[in-house]
Amino acid sequence: MGKIFHVVSLKHLLLVSIALNVSLILRVINISEKKILHSSSAHVNKNNIHLSSSSLTSFANARIEAQDGEERVINLDHGDPTMYEKYWQQEGDKTTIVIPGWQSLSYFSDVSNICWFLEPEFAKEVVRLHKVVGNAITENRHIVVGTGSTQLFQAALYALSPQDALEPISVVSAAPYYSSYPSITDCLKSGLYKWAGDAHSFKKEGPYIELVTSPNNPDGFVRQSVVNRSEGILVHDLAYYWPQYTSISFPADHDLMLFTVSKSTGHAGMRIGWAIVKDTEVAKKMTKYIELNTIGVSKDSQLRAAKVLKVVSNSCEPSSSEGKSFFEFSHNQLATRWELLRLAVQKSGQFSVPEFAPQFCTFLGRDFKPQPAFAWLKCEQEEAYPFIGPLLTFSSLDCINGLVMLTVTKNVAHTLKLSLLLITLMDPSDLAHYWPQYTSISFPANHDLMLFTVSTITGQAGM
Amino acid sequence: MGKIFHVVSLKHLLLVSIALNVSLILRVINISEKKILHSSSAHVNKNNIHLSSSSLTSFANARIEAQDGEERVINLDHGDPTMYEKYWQQEGDKTTIVIPGWQSLSYFSDVSNICWFLEPEFAKEVVRLHKVVGNAITENRHIVVGTGSTQLFQAALYALSPQDALEPISVVSAAPYYSSYPSITDCLKSGLYKWAGDAHSFKKEGPYIELVTSPNNPDGFVRQSVVNRSEGILVHDLAYYWPQYTSISFPADHDLMLFTVSKSTGHAGMRIGWAIVKDTEVAKKMTKYIELNTIGVSKDSQLRAAKVLKVVSNSCEPSSSEGKSFFEFSHNQLATRWELLRLAVQKSGQFSVPEFAPQFCTFLGRDFKPQPAFAWLKCEQEEAYPFIGPLLTFSSLDCINGLVMLTVTKNVAHTLKLSLLLITLMDPSDLAHYWPQYTSISFPANHDLMLFTVSTITGQAGM
Repeated sequence: MGKIFHVVSLKHLLLVSIALNVSLILRVINISEKKILHSSSAHVNKNNIHLSSSSLTSFANARIEAQDGEERVINLDHGDPTMYEKYWQQEGDKTTIVIPGWQSLSYFSDVSNICWFLEPEFAKEVVRLHKVVGNAITENRHIVVGTGSTQLFQAALYALSPQDALEPISVVSAAPYYSSYPSITDCLKSGLYKWAGDAHSFKKEGPYIELVTSPNNPDGFVRQSVVNRSEGILVHDLAYYWPQYTSISFPADHDLMLFTVSKSTGHAGMRIGWAIVKDTEVAKKMTKYIELNTIGVSKDSQLRAAKVLKVVSNSCEPSSSEGKSFFEFSHNQLATRWELLRLAVQKSGQFSVPEFAPQFCTFLGRDFKPQPAFAWLKCEQEEAYPFIGPLLTFSSLDCINGLVMLTVTKNVAHTLKLSLLLITLMDPSDLAHYWPQYTSISFPANHDLMLFTVSTITGQAGM
Repeated sequence: MGKIFHVVSLKHLLLVSIALNVSLILRVINISEKKILHSSSAHVNKNNIHLSSSSLTSFANARIEAQDGEERVINLDHGDPTMYEKYWQQEGDKTTIVIPGWQSLSYFSDVSNICWFLEPEFAKEVVRLHKVVGNAITENRHIVVGTGSTQLFQAALYALSPQDALEPISVVSAAPYYSSYPSITDCLKSGLYKWAGDAHSFKKEGPYIELVTSPNNPDGFVRQSVVNRSEGILVHDLAYYWPQYTSISFPADHDLMLFTVSKSTGHAGMRIGWAIVKDTEVAKKMTKYIELNTIGVSKDSQLRAAKVLKVVSNSCEPSSSEGKSFFEFSHNQLATRWELLRLAVQKSGQFSVPEFAPQFCTFLGRDFKPQPAFAWLKCEQEEAYPFIGPLLTFSSLDCINGLVMLTVTKNVAHTLKLSLLLITLMDPSDLAHYWPQYTSISFPANHDLMLFTVSTITGQAGM
């Protein structure tokens, strides 16, 4: 999940960083009149605003109304990985699921399994997909399904914490870490576990839990544990260890690994994640937590996820006649976005993005550089540092056909003429339709930073 | 959810009580050979056991195999409200949902709502159903959706607990209470709230949270708060405040009310519940908890629940040509089960069930006695008390066509010839098919307590 990264425990580096989810849905709300523009055209509130049926146009209209002086807010609190929508549209009915009203009434899915609410079909497709991609060992492991990997993270904390310790076990992760780790860990002030911050500076004796997110959210780097003491218990969050984001170097074989459909296939709305767990007692305790927390996990979504994973695996078979491999598609999509992003960042002169070394991917059979779901922008202008914070509560937004230019709140904008760039939910090939063959041109766009693509102007997609 | 009730805080009454979920799915596991008989025929493990396609027969087979000396275990840990399955089958495609692979990718459902992950269609149908049934006020209230009402209960605790108190707030409920309340409340040893037991004996000064379950799980009685101090905060669990279980006397109008589809429509596998909340700040905090806990709630299940609730409301419209009202159907189903249960209990001479006073139901327009989803059996034989406990870990089960006879562990059985009765998931009209016109008679059934229904013997359903 993409989320703005709070600058925590970063010491000597005066990085003012903003984690931008490249695949973010930009939800545009007209605050003043409560006009809602949903990116999904199915939910567009047609009563309040003039919209065509195309979500693309809805953004254009949003921009025009912004010219009228109304405020816009983009929800940056959560990234929203809807960028693979087009793939699933192309696949048509292959992933359509039909659930009759009398199905899945029961709480139970498989009473012979430790995780009794795990749909066998979903478990089967999880195992198959890991085998096809080669990114995790599943043999002789337990699979525990969760309402997203967030619930599984909490289940892991519950399962790994000593139940009768005098004080809560420390939970650490190397900075920069996923911004929600501290708030999830500490939200109930648990007596079992407690957030203890940056793993780099963790010195306390005794047992601890270290979260290893690899590739990391928000900076995209491949990671290993950093504390390395005998009493450490590791939880590996491998949500992004898929070939669209990073090279698959080996099948991961850690004690407890977390995955989620929201990052692998883009189906965040399902709220389905899974854990691969070596230790039987840990799997039992994780199951117990989910039983106490939500008495299992939506069967409807598990069945749907099973179908989606199956289509992904099918699309990767060498003999597949099912069209393009999902991972080829999503990999190329991210590659294009990173190309555009690097170009924009380079032109801005105000920001930079990390440089990654290429690595061989056993799945795609070639070298490539990591292309994370987040672009961790570094501001290169020292005088701008104090003003980056307010960017997160900006009040003014201009949006050109899905390529969004965020101008900072007026005062800051007037002072520094900063602008931030976000790439929307839409496919890059859909982004640059502000040309007369697509729409009426109301005024010349005039922003600090604008991106277009040749393919939509001239039709030369191959350039 | 039905769960065996642990005898907690009951003082002078030597009630040995067992909460039996009348609508329990009896999952029969062949422990010795890991043979699994799923009550849902779709999931029957056909490789390991000879089963006909009918789940009814699967129970019969289970019995026959039990005669061969193999052990059976029934999962009594959770009740499983699948008793309305037949209704949903009868309704056919009305509640069938089709979800294409590209739908519901986003985390977000309605960014204009405090509960941003609430599907508008689901919210609309919740409001409509409460209006149709007249069991809760929804006007000017917030609706918060949860992964079952269990998650909403925790969200409520999070929202209602002072964040900066020196010690956790006490959470109480009048005994007998839902057996999972203590373990859910204390599982993470939260510093925000702490289980404080029976509300009747709660004397501590200061703020507290009282859970009022009405009708109550496990005893079915209508309840009000019992502590009644100014610093009390109430959470009303109204999961069973529907006309199949109890008379609807008035639209409930409490500060925080919890409902769930598992009890109202029987769709436990969806994991969908909702809270009706007066206070905006409480609704915000509950939403925050669910965001931290699971980043929202399965969209697939919300959309499916919306469709199911819509069909329920439609079926209740006076002008409906949609067949039988869901609540008439489910009410009658429970009425029949209670009739059978009372008959059996009366004949046993060993147990009794509570007597309820009839009350006028504004929805059904007539008086009736409560017919809870649980039958709380009281053992009337004092000498049997020490032996009731082991019933919960019984190892022997005989099952006649879905009417299950639980014989206690051998020693106890030999000593006291006790037997317990459970009613299965199946419709009463399906229960008593151990007659030659339906199945081959292998041996004369020989148990302490056996139930048959005239309708299946003679076809005189009206008797």
